[in-house]
Amino acid sequence: MSSGSSRWNVRVSSSSSSPSPSPSSSSSSSSSLESVVSSLKWDEKGMLVAIAQDADTGMILMQAFANKDAVMNTVTSRKATWYSRSRDKLWIKGEESGNFIEVTSVYADCDGDSVIYLGKPRGPSCHTGAQTCYYTQLDGPDGAIANNQVKEHKKDFAHTHEHGAGAAPTATPTLLALQRTIADRANEPVVEGTKPSWTRRLLSNHELLCSKVREEADELCQALEKNEGVERATSEFGDVLYHSLVLLHAAGGDVNDALATLRARFNQSGVEEKASRK
Amino acid sequence: MSSGSSRWNVRVSSSSSSPSPSPSSSSSSSSSLESVVSSLKWDEKGMLVAIAQDADTGMILMQAFANKDAVMNTVTSRKATWYSRSRDKLWIKGEESGNFIEVTSVYADCDGDSVIYLGKPRGPSCHTGAQTCYYTQLDGPDGAIANNQVKEHKKDFAHTHEHGAGAAPTATPTLLALQRTIADRANEPVVEGTKPSWTRRLLSNHELLCSKVREEADELCQALEKNEGVERATSEFGDVLYHSLVLLHAAGGDVNDALATLRARFNQSGVEEKASRK
Repeated sequence: MSSGSSRWNVRVSSSSSSPSPSPSSSSSSSSSLESVVSSLKWDEKGMLVAIAQDADTGMILMQAFANKDAVMNTVTSRKATWYSRSRDKLWIKGEESGNFIEVTSVYADCDGDSVIYLGKPRGPSCHTGAQTCYYTQLDGPDGAIANNQVKEHKKDFAHTHEHGAGAAPTATPTLLALQRTIADRANEPVVEGTKPSWTRRLLSNHELLCSKVREEADELCQALEKNEGVERATSEFGDVLYHSLVLLHAAGGDVNDALATLRARFNQSGVEEKASRK
Repeated sequence: MSSGSSRWNVRVSSSSSSPSPSPSSSSSSSSSLESVVSSLKWDEKGMLVAIAQDADTGMILMQAFANKDAVMNTVTSRKATWYSRSRDKLWIKGEESGNFIEVTSVYADCDGDSVIYLGKPRGPSCHTGAQTCYYTQLDGPDGAIANNQVKEHKKDFAHTHEHGAGAAPTATPTLLALQRTIADRANEPVVEGTKPSWTRRLLSNHELLCSKVREEADELCQALEKNEGVERATSEFGDVLYHSLVLLHAAGGDVNDALATLRARFNQSGVEEKASRK
């Protein structure tokens, strides 16, 4: 967004101010789509910023510029599309590699000069083979600048979609970062005379792990049952989430898949609920 | 990123190829920071795309353009900073409103023309009062274009940081979206003759809710104990996560705070582990 207060000239039905929803047909919705896309704030080259984001984990996959046709193509084909200035044509991510980003929804920002393609990547999003293009941290630990090798990221992508993680310090929201930390701890060398991490201990003792998952769930319930307060409930929720993530790793699962399953289930459930009210 | 294979000329130590880490002092790290920031791929106006993202939930908060001084200021002051072209000066988000975005880490993309400011917002990030600038969905349900009112978003921000959610269909990764759905179900009117949603039933019966949280945790453990396979474990993890989120809502908690707590705990734990090995 800009720092000013300009608003793009969007003429759309507001969900809260419309007295009754207008009937939608595919022709009217596609023409209204075209009119709203046209009204976005295109720069002097006819472009805007388009950011692709993983719908489940929140990871930002890549960013490039899109023209009007690219945004229209994204919405209608459900494949994230940009404009390649070097090749002077539409660029459907994955058209050569097969690594499409399948788009579930498209959002514009308040002043209409930026959009998010929310979707699921069908392979690495970066041309280097990395899961995300954002793998270079400018402000690493101790002031170091961390630039990971492409090879590591290839491995990382496979790991994230097969069995947990990899240590790559890419720009990652907490839940996925936590899963990565757990995978890192799983690969820690055991050094004699030093105590292994708690995660490592849980992973090497499934009886302990399961007893902790049950115990933490019980403590979360007690926080509600005994009115122990919101801070306690929040902390216990964190404990349940962490121990469940460790168990998911031990079982060979991936939080990405779990979130995708939940999303599908809730979209479906919303539809069912609406249908049952008619 | 661009569709080409150009790489920005970054001279940084690679965590995997350096035989030994070089000692870091504050002066050497600030000069190496300046050199790496200079080597980013600035456009003809001296700008690049800078995206602010919530470090915990993954929500993209806003996007604007940054010049070199803006990126440097972000890393050194930890306040997300852009360049205001209309005012021709650095623009520290929150300098007027107090709604700073406190930056925890900064990542550049593969070709260095885009950065992510990963951080925590101290208030609404949008000038409209909305939590995120991305509240206009171009491809809403049934082809409708959903443009939410500012007022709703103000309420939404307060809700998300006080007690759960609000129904705003902003660009939101799954976990936060799920919390919003739960909050929506909590506010559903009960219509005689229709069955309330499962979420609503759980929220109105804490005994049932707690028994489900304990039951689902037990089933997740059994998936590991009885080797029921990765799909089963993934599905059970989803059940634990959903029912725990409902309980967190019932207790007045927010997943945002739970994730922030976990992030702090794990950063701390990493430090402790490193220290204990010395």
